[in-house]
Amino acid sequence: MAAGEQGWIAKLTGDVEIAALFEDQALIASFARFESALVAGLAAAGRIDGTHAHRLIDQIDAFTPDSAAIAEAAVRDGVPVPEYVRQLRDHVSGPGREMLHFGATSQDLVDTAMVEAATRVSVIVTGRLDRLIAQLDQLEARDGGNALQAITRMQPALRFRAADRLNTWRRPLQDLRNRLGTVRERMEMLQFGGATGDLQALGSDAATVAAALADHLKLRWPGHSWHSDRGALIGYAGWLTELSGALGKIGQDVALMALRGETDIALSGGGSSSAMPHKQNPVAAERLVALARFNANLAGAMYHTQINEMERSGAAWTLEWMIFPQICETTGAALNAATTLIQSINRMGEPS
Amino acid sequence: MAAGEQGWIAKLTGDVEIAALFEDQALIASFARFESALVAGLAAAGRIDGTHAHRLIDQIDAFTPDSAAIAEAAVRDGVPVPEYVRQLRDHVSGPGREMLHFGATSQDLVDTAMVEAATRVSVIVTGRLDRLIAQLDQLEARDGGNALQAITRMQPALRFRAADRLNTWRRPLQDLRNRLGTVRERMEMLQFGGATGDLQALGSDAATVAAALADHLKLRWPGHSWHSDRGALIGYAGWLTELSGALGKIGQDVALMALRGETDIALSGGGSSSAMPHKQNPVAAERLVALARFNANLAGAMYHTQINEMERSGAAWTLEWMIFPQICETTGAALNAATTLIQSINRMGEPS
Amino acid sequence: MAAGEQGWIAKLTGDVEIAALFEDQALIASFARFESALVAGLAAAGRIDGTHAHRLIDQIDAFTPDSAAIAEAAVRDGVPVPEYVRQLRDHVSGPGREMLHFGATSQDLVDTAMVEAATRVSVIVTGRLDRLIAQLDQLEARDGGNALQAITRMQPALRFRAADRLNTWRRPLQDLRNRLGTVRERMEMLQFGGATGDLQALGSDAATVAAALADHLKLRWPGHSWHSDRGALIGYAGWLTELSGALGKIGQDVALMALRGETDIALSGGGSSSAMPHKQNPVAAERLVALARFNANLAGAMYHTQINEMERSGAAWTLEWMIFPQICETTGAALNAATTLIQSINRMGEPS
Amino acid sequence: MAAGEQGWIAKLTGDVEIAALFEDQALIASFARFESALVAGLAAAGRIDGTHAHRLIDQIDAFTPDSAAIAEAAVRDGVPVPEYVRQLRDHVSGPGREMLHFGATSQDLVDTAMVEAATRVSVIVTGRLDRLIAQLDQLEARDGGNALQAITRMQPALRFRAADRLNTWRRPLQDLRNRLGTVRERMEMLQFGGATGDLQALGSDAATVAAALADHLKLRWPGHSWHSDRGALIGYAGWLTELSGALGKIGQDVALMALRGETDIALSGGGSSSAMPHKQNPVAAERLVALARFNANLAGAMYHTQINEMERSGAAWTLEWMIFPQICETTGAALNAATTLIQSINRMGEPS
Repeated sequence: MAAGEQGWIAKLTGDVEIAALFEDQALIASFARFESALVAGLAAAGRIDGTHAHRLIDQIDAFTPDSAAIAEAAVRDGVPVPEYVRQLRDHVSGPGREMLHFGATSQDLVDTAMVEAATRVSVIVTGRLDRLIAQLDQLEARDGGNALQAITRMQPALRFRAADRLNTWRRPLQDLRNRLGTVRERMEMLQFGGATGDLQALGSDAATVAAALADHLKLRWPGHSWHSDRGALIGYAGWLTELSGALGKIGQDVALMALRGETDIALSGGGSSSAMPHKQNPVAAERLVALARFNANLAGAMYHTQINEMERSGAAWTLEWMIFPQICETTGAALNAATTLIQSINRMGEPS
Repeated sequence: MAAGEQGWIAKLTGDVEIAALFEDQALIASFARFESALVAGLAAAGRIDGTHAHRLIDQIDAFTPDSAAIAEAAVRDGVPVPEYVRQLRDHVSGPGREMLHFGATSQDLVDTAMVEAATRVSVIVTGRLDRLIAQLDQLEARDGGNALQAITRMQPALRFRAADRLNTWRRPLQDLRNRLGTVRERMEMLQFGGATGDLQALGSDAATVAAALADHLKLRWPGHSWHSDRGALIGYAGWLTELSGALGKIGQDVALMALRGETDIALSGGGSSSAMPHKQNPVAAERLVALARFNANLAGAMYHTQINEMERSGAAWTLEWMIFPQICETTGAALNAATTLIQSINRMGEPS
Repeated sequence: MAAGEQGWIAKLTGDVEIAALFEDQALIASFARFESALVAGLAAAGRIDGTHAHRLIDQIDAFTPDSAAIAEAAVRDGVPVPEYVRQLRDHVSGPGREMLHFGATSQDLVDTAMVEAATRVSVIVTGRLDRLIAQLDQLEARDGGNALQAITRMQPALRFRAADRLNTWRRPLQDLRNRLGTVRERMEMLQFGGATGDLQALGSDAATVAAALADHLKLRWPGHSWHSDRGALIGYAGWLTELSGALGKIGQDVALMALRGETDIALSGGGSSSAMPHKQNPVAAERLVALARFNANLAGAMYHTQINEMERSGAAWTLEWMIFPQICETTGAALNAATTLIQSINRMGEPS
Repeated sequence: MAAGEQGWIAKLTGDVEIAALFEDQALIASFARFESALVAGLAAAGRIDGTHAHRLIDQIDAFTPDSAAIAEAAVRDGVPVPEYVRQLRDHVSGPGREMLHFGATSQDLVDTAMVEAATRVSVIVTGRLDRLIAQLDQLEARDGGNALQAITRMQPALRFRAADRLNTWRRPLQDLRNRLGTVRERMEMLQFGGATGDLQALGSDAATVAAALADHLKLRWPGHSWHSDRGALIGYAGWLTELSGALGKIGQDVALMALRGETDIALSGGGSSSAMPHKQNPVAAERLVALARFNANLAGAMYHTQINEMERSGAAWTLEWMIFPQICETTGAALNAATTLIQSINRMGEPS
């Protein structure tokens, strides 16, 4: 989505840090890394002379493309790479120049760039999640022994300790944290398939080039292209959505505790009202619920990208571009809101 | 969502013109119109002297708020209005100043601003839709008599004329166009309810103030607040989604016709490929499918905003802000892509 | 879905009365009505002798098809009509027999049967909705003057009267009731298009046959087939979903009032707990929330059926069959749960 | 959903074998296993005498509850367990009888029953998936060397071999198969938490009872209740949905190949048409697309169940019951349709 959503709505529901990872500048820098690594890979397979490769790589690294023209051409081409490669071809010179982009296709660059962005999302998310879990630890250390009314099906059940509810908040987060490694390992892989996904232009050099390319990008080479199999990105989006859902549960609980009042929770820094100055609205808690429900529906849409016609679906791919960055950003925003919310808890439960 | 999606992805899938309607500048201008109209309404009910009201309105109209501070405060307050009103109160002076925002609440300003934005969306969408229908008329006039293979369940059925398929594209659009008036009439209404939706602060003057306020804003006054009833916005989002779906069907058909080849359609200006220069990809057609499927899932999410807790749900409201502008923008982008697509049809069917 | 969901889950979330409208027996009876009316329509156009037509119609009406064989064949054919028509052709005899099903196709029968089922859904839903609105009127008459705490953003706002909240429950229902006529009028139409939607087999008799056919079925003839345009069913599904959403809001409010306790609401007949005999859970209220959220996501899925490939999409059509009956049934279940819930309110608010 | 969907729609889109796993009979049998295992667990902790426990277990195992009464009571209680336990208590006699259901709550029985059903789903799905992968192996062995037109963005790209496309179908299936163990391990766990999830009624015996109970049921005991954390079921639903999506991609490809014609694929046993006897519609392929898109939207709805209010959300839980069995059944139906489809491929690509 475009500029209209950069004001207060974006401030409330977006994440500037994560959004930046999907900006043209970041994605195009990934394109450049890919093209450089590909030249290196081609050199490893003897398809281009080592010295020529070095000179080409230097030129690729030094090139500043016209990103406005790339964005413009993406409307016509349905993908930004043809114009990027055209500009890059105009820029580089010298022997071996014809090997630029050799064996690769637009999807190799775009998918690999998405993976690189998602990898950086993981780093940000991990830091915030660890911090949040530590906050919950501290909250438990401080208030865990307080008495709290357990509520089942919207009715008071028995009483228990604040720690009991805190555990139900923290456990899913810890569990998600523990599973991130597996999810990342699956997702952080090179896309490389060439025109039709079979690397046919590289013949018997395909494996050598792919391995070297992956090595340069510090990504796993799964042994084949995944151009029409979006499962790994869906899996990662599912992990992020489950995380935002776990935070949404915390938000819902805090909002309900705030509704029940001081016996359950004391919050500071709630939202003010334009009509009722006495109010302290649990706005961060409500936001967590909104972010979770937004991601829930986007996560469902991700599965539609699996219906990927034959060797490359422009429709499914475009749909993915509309959804995937938003899921990343929404989860990032949810982590920030959760940290704000937990910090604002002055007291949970009642000292016994 | 924030800045990350303003590059080529936004170019492909967004709509700058519609996005601008939901920018802070536009929405805050609506807030100012509301506050001015409210002062006029309070004057109509004798709650403020007419001369004082005029002077206040002039000050409101002349005020340029600090929108960055408003966006910042929205994170804390969950809504941008408290800070806007605070700034405005600091700005205005003179007698009657205490009547500023009297009887109103944040939701009155935000919901009415959304309605104003949506009203402008309608104007843009109407113009584009009329143009698209005219394009389809022209295409029929040119190619309607051509022979075309009808396809049912992905298999050749009987042959018919290009006009027969064109009719199945145009009829839903014409039908949507015909129903827009009803959808708009329902949606283009004033939100005015005060702190709890019952205008209790205005007592017996409520009806007079509301009617005058609506009159100044050229919006319908439904006779009551709709703070916790999001049906009208959902209905409008549904109309937009149905429109993008009807365009998605055209896109899917053109993509399939392009797959079947020259007997079905000849397109110009297709997308180029970085690996296969001979290709002309039907990228606008694919984009229509992506935009339709994206909106489909967002439209489902809109219904969740109906679960609006008691007199005001911050969670449901925030969710609406995340979804509604995107549905507007996506439909706008689809109309643009459809126009591009229809223009690119050099021939449909085979001259008999 | 099949048999597994007929036990307690179905009791909780389904609607036997509405489910029956989509059973084979009901849908196949619609097929028979269509075939009879088609013969009458063909007679009106002089394509079959009147006496022969009468004899054929009598045979069609008297025929009891083997519905198990039809269901079995539907797996192979993707649609139940070919086997139904085959059985019917075996059954009927006499002159004019060759005109059976003439000019029609499977979709004409299935879509018209769905419209007939939906029409009967409307009758059921209307009765229940009127009853529910009357219940709310009575509740207001009894408790409307009671004092109640208004809640905005999960925090106490000002106090108002129970009638104020009741109005926010009833108004959307009344509004939906008022709009049902328009929604029904759009949806209650004959599907008739023949093999490719253009009625080409009937030539210049198409309009006469269609008009007579529609007349016999007491359905509107829109002047053309709508085989690839699912808008009217989506519109109806949207109305139903908005209704279940409005009921979900009531459910959410009651659940929250039950959480706040006796100051807000006194309920009888709540759900019992296997572990805590003292509890009275607001289970009908919770159920309303679940039904609303279920429908919300199904309603989003309905829009995907618009991406209807060329003249008939088996994929989109099958998807519609999976969703549409469930939306009808879920809304019916929600109306029943809402009636149960409102009946269980012993007191709302506090007598002042 | 109820009875209405058991006819041809259910035949087309449902799975009788999987549906049966969620029938009352199956779920109530799980309740009995739980209650027996709980008595054994209580005996292990010395809470009930071993001989008494044996006698109780025999009585539990021998008991045939009135499932119609249970389904009826579930509407009132929102859950079937209170009535089941009431009937069981009436049935059993002898010393130790008061320990029946001790420490447990409705959710322990229902969630564990769902896990048991899902475990059986895994067994069925595994068998079918293995068979399908073997079918694809055989298809590759037979036709893999045939020439095929690769298609990217709905346009002919280069030519490759049928094996290349077959690999893109099989790899995601193989990958899903490889990951099933992890998904199952996470999901196949005992639910045991008592009234508020903390097993407080069992005091220091909680761990002993839980371990013995899990051991008897051959389920993992995660060390704590997961009453308000639905992540494991969401993860399993996600795996199933990803599987149906991978099958939907195969269906979409086959439908498009059938559209392109004999150069791409020769199918037998396609669906017949009531109007055009010459047609052979790829109905199993279309069905796969429908099933995948249906599951996609349901999978999104699953994440909403994470917003689980405090210690037990009737709303989220009911929503889960509406969705989860359907996702299982839809994936089962998709596996069956995929097997039918692959069997019907007479030839893929062109012998070179």
